[in-house]
Amino acid sequence: MPRTSDARDRIVLTAARLFLERSYHDVGVEELCAAADVRKGSFYHYFSSKAELANAVIDMHMQVFQTRLTPEPGATPAQMLSAIPDAIGAIQADLHAHFGRFVGCPFGNIAAELSTTDETVRIHLAARLAALEGQLARVCRKAADDGTLREGVDPDRLAHALFAHYQGLILLAKLHCSDAAALTPALHDFVGSHLAP
Amino acid sequence: MPRTSDARDRIVLTAARLFLERSYHDVGVEELCAAADVRKGSFYHYFSSKAELANAVIDMHMQVFQTRLTPEPGATPAQMLSAIPDAIGAIQADLHAHFGRFVGCPFGNIAAELSTTDETVRIHLAARLAALEGQLARVCRKAADDGTLREGVDPDRLAHALFAHYQGLILLAKLHCSDAAALTPALHDFVGSHLAP
Repeated sequence: MPRTSDARDRIVLTAARLFLERSYHDVGVEELCAAADVRKGSFYHYFSSKAELANAVIDMHMQVFQTRLTPEPGATPAQMLSAIPDAIGAIQADLHAHFGRFVGCPFGNIAAELSTTDETVRIHLAARLAALEGQLARVCRKAADDGTLREGVDPDRLAHALFAHYQGLILLAKLHCSDAAALTPALHDFVGSHLAP
Repeated sequence: MPRTSDARDRIVLTAARLFLERSYHDVGVEELCAAADVRKGSFYHYFSSKAELANAVIDMHMQVFQTRLTPEPGATPAQMLSAIPDAIGAIQADLHAHFGRFVGCPFGNIAAELSTTDETVRIHLAARLAALEGQLARVCRKAADDGTLREGVDPDRLAHALFAHYQGLILLAKLHCSDAAALTPALHDFVGSHLAP
């Protein structure tokens, strides 16, 4: 038997995989427990509800995004800005390789499925994504300050627009089963259209 | 009793409303039939499955989008291009007024929920959205031909990027319960960043 201390991690990892492979609603707690090799009682020891598990899955993915989107020390604002499409593209390339297709953004999928049906998850995810957008906005502000951005581009609006653009691209890529290589260039196109000539 | 010939329309309209209000998975066929005031047998007379109903809901919304996104006769390419954010913004403002909040894009919601779980719906929606993107691309090509677009902007890529941008913005607006007035200016910002100076 695996150690009990591993059980929570196993539930979160299994849920993260199954939610991406199919969807939040398509995977029941019973199936999840079987796939994670934990008893149902054990599940409810760690999570009061499936929604609480969704929040834990969000936090797990958020650690990856925050880490990969942290600028390299010593990078110029232009380099930091250009690193954002590369980092997001790399996260999605990993997911594409793992699942053999685009499965969407872990955050976007849950936002689409649960924003109108579960207020606790909506509030949790909205706060996490606002923080991530804040991280992008700090880079965009540095790029505005040193003249990397085209005149008149508001850095905070750009951070939101960039994150939105990623969400829309990956949603359509999931729908159209697009090629893994298409995402990063499209994100670079978006950033490029906001740079000073 | 309402006429039988109305029953199909009533099912589609009720499903469209409930799917937006909550989600595709959150609404069962039984509840749907009760809300539409039709018998379950009647439902399966018109639809072989809930997925087939999803496709009918997609087609109903698509008629609205295609009509509203049809350029005014005599409009210049610049006017046609600028009319796209206005038309999408108006559709979403109507939905916001009806539901009292952003409920997402009818297409984006279904793309997020069903692309990995129902291949018949995915294929149907992908074809419909490709056609809609083609409609946008024709406008973008006219704008490229008459010099409205910034040099180097590929009109077909722009049409895809514009539709993706809308999808991402409305997904985040649904998550953050954003103000109805924010969407149209954000879409104009996007188009504006691709125009010739």
